[in-house]
Formats: sequence, C-alpha cells, structure tokens
Amino acid sequence: MAVKRQKWSKDFGEWFRDVLINAGIMDYRYPIKGCGVWMPYGFKIRRNILQVLRDLLDNAGHDETLFPLMIPETSLAQESAHVKSFEGECFWVTHGGFEPLKVRYALRPTSETVIAPMLKLWIRSHADLPLKMYQIVNVFRHETKATRPILRMREVEPFKEAHTCHATSEEAEQQIHEAVELYKRFFDAVGVPYVVSRRPDWDKFAGALYTIAFDVLCPDGRTLQIGTVHNLGQNFAKAFDITYETKDGGQEHIWTTSYGISGRGIAAVLIIHGDDNGIVLPPKIAPIQVAVVPVPYKGKEEHVNEACRTVAAKLNDAGYRVELDLRGDLTPGNKFYYWELRGVPIRIEIGPRDLANRVVTIVRRDSLKKQTWKMDDVTAAVQTFAEEVTHDLKANAAAWMKERVYRVESLSEAKSLLKRKAGIVEVPWCGKDECGHSLEETVEARLLGFPEDTTEKVDGKCLVCGEKAVNVVRVALAY
Amino acid sequence: MAVKRQKWSKDFGEWFRDVLINAGIMDYRYPIKGCGVWMPYGFKIRRNILQVLRDLLDNAGHDETLFPLMIPETSLAQESAHVKSFEGECFWVTHGGFEPLKVRYALRPTSETVIAPMLKLWIRSHADLPLKMYQIVNVFRHETKATRPILRMREVEPFKEAHTCHATSEEAEQQIHEAVELYKRFFDAVGVPYVVSRRPDWDKFAGALYTIAFDVLCPDGRTLQIGTVHNLGQNFAKAFDITYETKDGGQEHIWTTSYGISGRGIAAVLIIHGDDNGIVLPPKIAPIQVAVVPVPYKGKEEHVNEACRTVAAKLNDAGYRVELDLRGDLTPGNKFYYWELRGVPIRIEIGPRDLANRVVTIVRRDSLKKQTWKMDDVTAAVQTFAEEVTHDLKANAAAWMKERVYRVESLSEAKSLLKRKAGIVEVPWCGKDECGHSLEETVEARLLGFPEDTTEKVDGKCLVCGEKAVNVVRVALAY
Repeated sequence: MAVKRQKWSKDFGEWFRDVLINAGIMDYRYPIKGCGVWMPYGFKIRRNILQVLRDLLDNAGHDETLFPLMIPETSLAQESAHVKSFEGECFWVTHGGFEPLKVRYALRPTSETVIAPMLKLWIRSHADLPLKMYQIVNVFRHETKATRPILRMREVEPFKEAHTCHATSEEAEQQIHEAVELYKRFFDAVGVPYVVSRRPDWDKFAGALYTIAFDVLCPDGRTLQIGTVHNLGQNFAKAFDITYETKDGGQEHIWTTSYGISGRGIAAVLIIHGDDNGIVLPPKIAPIQVAVVPVPYKGKEEHVNEACRTVAAKLNDAGYRVELDLRGDLTPGNKFYYWELRGVPIRIEIGPRDLANRVVTIVRRDSLKKQTWKMDDVTAAVQTFAEEVTHDLKANAAAWMKERVYRVESLSEAKSLLKRKAGIVEVPWCGKDECGHSLEETVEARLLGFPEDTTEKVDGKCLVCGEKAVNVVRVALAY
Repeated sequence: MAVKRQKWSKDFGEWFRDVLINAGIMDYRYPIKGCGVWMPYGFKIRRNILQVLRDLLDNAGHDETLFPLMIPETSLAQESAHVKSFEGECFWVTHGGFEPLKVRYALRPTSETVIAPMLKLWIRSHADLPLKMYQIVNVFRHETKATRPILRMREVEPFKEAHTCHATSEEAEQQIHEAVELYKRFFDAVGVPYVVSRRPDWDKFAGALYTIAFDVLCPDGRTLQIGTVHNLGQNFAKAFDITYETKDGGQEHIWTTSYGISGRGIAAVLIIHGDDNGIVLPPKIAPIQVAVVPVPYKGKEEHVNEACRTVAAKLNDAGYRVELDLRGDLTPGNKFYYWELRGVPIRIEIGPRDLANRVVTIVRRDSLKKQTWKMDDVTAAVQTFAEEVTHDLKANAAAWMKERVYRVESLSEAKSLLKRKAGIVEVPWCGKDECGHSLEETVEARLLGFPEDTTEKVDGKCLVCGEKAVNVVRVALAY
C-alpha cells in the first residue's frame, strides 16, 4: 500500500489541545497550570491502553505494586547525581496541618528513592532475585518550560514505572534488552512507530549508567520521547547500601534497572493516527469499536431503527463494543462528525435503500472509505475491517515516519532539513562529548543518540571533527 | 448453620499488622509514618476488590475519571465549613523547585473542591444533568492520632470517591438512596456485614446536609467506618456558583452528593473473615482460588506431581485461578501454612493413597474441614465448595455481628456492654445534640447515628432526658 497521510491543516499543538477537549479526553482548564482532568471518554481510552501495558508486564513476570507518593528529602538526597537533577523541579511539602514538618517531603518525580529503602528490607539473598515490579501512578515535576496537555504536565498522569533488581551486571543488561523488547511490543500493539536510541551521556537519567529511549515523530516534525529504559548499575544499591548474600556466602550490592512510559504513550496514539476530523483509534483500544447510525427518511424511521438495533445486537453478541446511536436531536451528519471526532474505527450506516437491499454501509474511520456489505455478513465484515484498520494504521504511521528519517552527509544538509522540520536526521559522529555539543549547537537541535534498533553500523567520518565515526547519531527537534 | 467464629488468640491490632506483612499485602515500614506499600499479593487482592466496585458503579451509570491531586488553597477555602474542617489536617505544598509558590497547594483530603471548578465549566443546562462520576485515587490527611496500616493512614490508598450532580433536591435524595443500595451490594459481594446509620449532625462531612455511614464491627469490639454517603445539598454549588439553565429558562444552583469507600473497604474483608492462621478470602476476589499441593512419599514424587499437574490444568481450563505448588524446598505442612496465611479459599491435596483411590482431598480455608472427593469430579467439587465458602463466610460474619448488637434499656447497661467491648449498643434517644453529647460522655463511646437500614422505629424515652425518643441511636467504640 502506498504511503498515505491525512492532512493536517491546523497547527499541531492547537489541533491536539482542541481534540483533547472536544472529544472528551482531557480538560486542561484546571486552576493549577500543568494539571488536567481525564474525562470519561479519555479515561476509557487510558484504561484500555494501560491494560495492554499491564498484560505485557504481568506476562513477563512483573508484579504490580503501589508505593507512597511522598519522599523524605533525606531519601531523595541519598544518590547524589539523582538529587542534583531533581531537587530543582520537585514540588515540596513543608507543612502538615498548621505545623511545619521536620523533614520536608518531595512529591515523587520518579520512584527510585521511594523503592530503595524497601528493597533494603526485602532483599536478603540471591534467592530473592530477580525482583521485577511496576506501578502506575502520578509523578510531579515543577516544569519551568511551557506546559502542554499530556505532553508536558506538572502532574504527569499516568506514569508507568517498572523497577527490577538483579544479582549480576549481566542479568541487569539482559533485563534492559527485555524491557526494550516489551516496549516495542507495546508500541507495536497500539500502532505507534518509534526509533530506539541510546541517549548521549549528558542526557541520561540522573543516577543511571545509560539510558535507552523511544522517540516518535510528531506531525509537526518534532520528536517526542515516549519511553525510557535505564540501566542503574549499582548506583542506587550503593547509595542505599542494598546487598544480597551470594551463593557462596559473600555480600554483594544488587544491580537495578528502571523503565517508564508516561501519558505520552497515550498521547502518541492520539497524535500519530489523528487527522483534521479528530482522533483515530486502533480497534483493540477503542472504547467504542463500532458506531451504528440510522439514516432514516421520513416515515421510515422505525424500520431503519429496528434494523440498526438488530445489527448492533448481533455485533454486541459477537463481542464487539458497539454504540447504537438513536439520538433524536441530531442529524446523521452530526452523528458522523461526532463519532469521527472520537476516533471510533468503524461506522455502520443503514438507510431505507440499504434496508430494501438487505445491505449496510460500512465506513472506515482511518480512510473514510465507504463500502456496501450484505447485512447478514456484517459480523464477518466488521472483523475484516477491524483487522485492516489495525494493520493500515500501524503500517501507514510507520511508513510515514520512516520516510522522514534522513541519512545526511554534511552538517549544512542536516541543518537545512531540521530547519524546515523535515524529521529526524542521522549524522556520522565520533561519540566525543565536545563534538556532540558542537553538533547540537550547529544544527540547533538535540542528539537522540546512537541507534539501538538496528545492528547496521555506518562507517564514516564524524561530521564535526573528521575522525572515524562510531556510528550515525540521530538528531531531531525534540519536545 | 450455627454461628461459628474463629478464635482470635492475638490482640487484633497486632494480628492485623503481622498478617499484612507476612501474607505480602502491605509493608508499613516506609520512612514516612502513615504511608505503606501495597505489595504484589496485596495489590492483586486490591485489584479484584476494586473491580467489584468498578463494575457496580459503571453499571449504575457512573463514569470513571481522574482529577488532579493538588488543590489551590483559594479553592479549598471557598466552602467555609469544608475548609475549617480540613485545613488543619492537610499536607501543604509550598515550593516548586527552589521557588516559593504564590498560592500554596493542599494535597487533596477529598475532591469536592477539585471537581467544583470543573463542574462550573461543564454544566450549562438541565440536559447536562444528572452527572455521575467517580475516581479511585490516594487522599492525604495529616493524622495526629496514632496511625495504623490501612485503617488510619496519612496517605489513604485507595480512596474511591463518587461525585454526582442533580437538577433538584429530590433527585439528589434519590441518588443518596441509590448510593446506599450500591454500597450494600458491594459489601454483600465481599461478605462484609455492616450497619447503616445516619451520623449525628456534629459528625457529618464538612459541607454536607447530612452523612449516612456504613460501619462494621471488628473482632476487638470496636467499629470501623467503611463507607460514607453525603448529601451536599447546594452548599458546594453555591460556594462555587455552579448553576444550570432550567427547562423554563431560569438559572438554578445544582444539587450534589458524594460518597466514598477507602482502603478500609479492603481491610474489612481481611479482618472480618480472618483467623489465627491468616486471612480468608471469598473466592470471587481471591487472586488464587485453589492451591494444589502434592503430599508425596519417597519414590512416588513424580506420580503424585503428575496427578497434581493434571488436576491443576483441569481447574485452570474451567476458569479457576489455580496455583500448582511444586516447590521442592518446602514440606507439605509448610505449604499448607503458606496458603492458609494468604487466605486461598480452597486447597487440594494429593498423596499416594489418594492417587491409588483416584480421589483428592479438598480443604476449605474457612472451616479447615477436609473432604475426600473423586478425582474425576474435581471441577464440580471446587464449584460447590467455592459457593459454600462464599455463602458461609458471609453468613457467619453477618450472624457474628448481628449477635453483637444490643438493644439496651439503661445507660448503665450500655456503659457496661461498651466497657467490656461487647459490640454495638442501641439506645433510645430524643435526637437533641445536648443529650447526644451527654450520652457519649456517660458511656465513653461514639454515636454512630440513627439506623438507616431498617424501617423499624423504636418507641420509648430518651435515656438521657426522659423525653420521647425519635428512635434508638447506635453507640460504639469507634476506630
């Protein structure tokens, strides 16, 4: 299939803000900047997407847990790189009732320092390892940059964070690999394309050995970080003195990893498949998979409504999430607009002529193409269409993004591509910090890092210093 | 069936703290007092119990939503009774990063004042009503009383709070009735007995017209408030000026209600069915419904294990949540202890003699009674036992509690019953505040309120002033 892409006639940021509120996903007008309300329809999308993530993690041996929100400053300060990075963007609780607290509490910006004191209690011996947990919570960052609904919040909601503990460095490395594979499967399941890159050292998570990140390209040519995987080595284990008894009776510090996906994982689904008419949801996560809309003429209303009821009941029995739209105060056109805005993947229309011919009209939300189908075969048709929509959403988004990754041979070419927001550029780089910083300054963009999703290695010369390149590094205008 | 009650040889508080950590439910040793960690097994119990609650609310037309955690002090202060009650027990966020905030934020102690500003944006006309929402979140209270795991936390987790909006006082009243019925169905589903009482005026929710509460009796003779339903009248609507256009074009303030169940709803299940061996879970909410344990003799291990595998697979196929316990480092006795502690409702044991006779031994967790059953009929047997356990847990708990509600005819009788922690006493009361306070002082206990779960009205004289009683009032040692 040819690469097709819906038109984006609006500014992307404006489109996103509008669609969030108009489709009933998030209301961002809360009195505190950077905090939003997940509205009923948005919450249902969130529930379904998180269920995909929960199933993946549960099946891969992770236990869901729930840790406290508040962190004593003394805990946060225990890992020095960590506290330096986060203390300036924490919200601080200083009073309980009318009394000042003896030690102030940070609202978790992430939970490594919440979990560490408990790991120290729980882990005694090698038999307690590996330990794999996750929680789905809100985290808090006092952002000084402009906030944006879901994409850059002060209350980040949801934040799925996994935390694992291992006996050896090799097992932690293996877990990093597994985490990357899990996240690929998650984004594949919701049809979101990505590149996976190892962040440059200066952009890794504070307290990590290294960070691997997932980025998606937004319609405006900027990338959005949608998932991160951190190898924490023994940094937190040493800071909190978490040790285990080895098989031969010695004491060793454990090795830990953490990996997270925030509400941006949900936003990406809405953004990457959306168009001027609204969002477009993959059937697997759509709260309503099929909307059945009567298109009656005067005098024929009851026959048409009755046929719609029958079709809706049939699809419901077959296990689809169906909405039968018999609202009397809206025209069929209003209803089409309503369900398109909300991204319902399949719409079924039945009019008097359809009824006479014992057919239905099926409309795909992604392509807006209409097809006529025998009424008796409607269940099989919906199954086929649902599979096609799932496939095409993913394939189109992937092809669209792939076309926008450019291998360049000069800095001026990189700069020009980035200036016109063409996408992601790949630049041969020697890996040295000074060349990396110079590169970012020259092209006025950010290094995403060396590719982690391909074994291909590009030979060539660093476009900054001319020395042998380690590989290409991905560069983009990053949100 | 006769009222039977497990023995509680330990102090109840000690039993509860121990079972929470030993069964892997909650670890309460977090560095901040009143904050706990939901551990993997506890989280699974929590998930299942909340699913029962979600299903009930979803089916009754409530939409799940999620509102922000932080409340500007200016919002909290808008309803005067509300702020007076809560400001002294809020945690206060005063700094973002290194900068003081212009207005400090409270961590929600409850969300009426979070939701109100959004309702003002959402509600325009009578067509927007009724509106029924809920969220499952954490709430925060800087408790000055001694904290206790789950029962009295500073981070209360989970807290399910529902909020509804209505056009008339009558519809709000009707919603209160529905909410009480929903909560009855919830507690019935998890086998927790309760009394429903209308709290005296001085003990209602701050900002409400009145509060109806659910209380359960704990094994130590104290009551635990496990659910509350508040009619908020137009108090919050007026404080936040939330109006709607009526059918005839006028503007009226809306009427609101709220109702909540906290982690205590989960604790109640653990407490009320538990015994010296651990917790006992109703099958519906048990993460593991059946534990299959081989009881091998030397040389027969593989045959016995194989039979266990077959039985476990069969039950799994029938839709039960089964754990096959083939751990090699534990004796069968250790395993029995392990699963009893965790409340697994049905245990199946298979030894060489069972195998020879093609039978299994089935042990009910509640009664610890053993029965032998044909191996081929194991699925039907498990179904029967699961139904019996469900029924008996509920019936025994209800009968036990009912026996401990005493109708008294003198204050000295009431005082003596309460002194020996016998249960709940019902005392004729005229309804006047001064007599109520005097009653509480005399019997050194708390008024739960007039019964709301019976239409029976007791004629008689107030035991304090001797005037005509409105009804009996329930009095108890309340947590």
